[in-house]
Amino acid sequence: MNCKIVLVRPRDPNNIGAVARAMKNFGFHELTVVAVHPPVWNEISSAPNAMDVLTNARVVATLAEAIADCNLVIGTTDRTRVEAKQSVFTPLELSRELAETEYNLALVFGSEKHGLTNEDLSHCHRVMSIPTQPNCPSMNLGQAVAICCYELVREQAQREMLPRPAETATAGATEAALQLLLDVLRQIDFVLPGNEPDLTRRLRSSLLRLNPTKYDIEILCGILSRIKRGLPPDPHNPN
Amino acid sequence: MNCKIVLVRPRDPNNIGAVARAMKNFGFHELTVVAVHPPVWNEISSAPNAMDVLTNARVVATLAEAIADCNLVIGTTDRTRVEAKQSVFTPLELSRELAETEYNLALVFGSEKHGLTNEDLSHCHRVMSIPTQPNCPSMNLGQAVAICCYELVREQAQREMLPRPAETATAGATEAALQLLLDVLRQIDFVLPGNEPDLTRRLRSSLLRLNPTKYDIEILCGILSRIKRGLPPDPHNPN
Repeated sequence: MNCKIVLVRPRDPNNIGAVARAMKNFGFHELTVVAVHPPVWNEISSAPNAMDVLTNARVVATLAEAIADCNLVIGTTDRTRVEAKQSVFTPLELSRELAETEYNLALVFGSEKHGLTNEDLSHCHRVMSIPTQPNCPSMNLGQAVAICCYELVREQAQREMLPRPAETATAGATEAALQLLLDVLRQIDFVLPGNEPDLTRRLRSSLLRLNPTKYDIEILCGILSRIKRGLPPDPHNPN
Repeated sequence: MNCKIVLVRPRDPNNIGAVARAMKNFGFHELTVVAVHPPVWNEISSAPNAMDVLTNARVVATLAEAIADCNLVIGTTDRTRVEAKQSVFTPLELSRELAETEYNLALVFGSEKHGLTNEDLSHCHRVMSIPTQPNCPSMNLGQAVAICCYELVREQAQREMLPRPAETATAGATEAALQLLLDVLRQIDFVLPGNEPDLTRRLRSSLLRLNPTKYDIEILCGILSRIKRGLPPDPHNPN
């Protein structure tokens, strides 16, 4: 995805670091910082593993300069600051649109304290808000960037995270554990005359529904074998 | 949604604050902190608007105590720390499951430095990872909580954020602006003999496709009227 993150007048260097880290978590690399607030922001400790994003960041004086090569500029704002007559866009809608059309995208975030000004927003094609609760609408800068980056790659990242299925036990291994369990139940006289077929079915169903792994069955068999050896033998069927 | 956020051995009070803020951003209120690291974490400045979440937070000594009343406990971990044989769950999958079944859910997050231990994870029904990039898998605690909370309410929050459609200009107002524009074009001899119908159609299409607001058309008409008055009258049709 061709997307740059633009921070306008960020104040806290650690927020810039947190932004870089979230970008890298989701595969974004282009960071542009506009009119950064002193002190020097390249002494940041909050970006483990993402210092390259900071080192390669572009520092410019104006928002116009930051976005000159973009054909879709999205200004973000707290939803309560959007004028009633403006239409608001959400990250979900943006991600749906980007699935259909390729843009040179800039996502623009304002300062922690005041967000983007109306002047800043006039440079943007659209205004976007994360759908937060009305009683706590304003988000932390690093968290807002993290959510936008997550949303933009959500479907793709989900697909790439190949499921690693647990090694589910085979039916045979589960059945062997069941038989061992039944041996123990007989030894402790838990199996009443006539109820064995029904009890067996119920226990088999339960074991399979629990969907145990190979390891679960191994440990269960180990425990049951030890119990079986420790108990007096089945009075009705000593072996 | 019946969901508590459980932080196990968090170290940085400002991360606890950031977690509280993200929770409140997305409508989560129940925070439990296990074996919190000194110094005292109730002197936190990073939770504007969410101090109530901190004030009402439960502080307990063990994870077992924190989750005793939950019937779905999800432990979060960096995807690279998951053992190859374990199946990993994602926030998207969790949110799909919660849409179908109601649980007393706990989302458990480990310390910033080491995450959850294997001992902690043994208390969890499932292990969940956010699908981050393999070259920067580990997330900031506040950002990870923000993404999980966002994901769990994403569809609902999206629906609740009623679209506020911009006051799009009426066709009549746009047509009036077009006629004013054509007046000006005639005055500057931009309309060549014979091309007026075609030019009119093209400009009308462009104007409508731009989907201007009422305000856009008002300002356009204001500008065009002023230009019209400033120019010498149309030589072919003075009025």
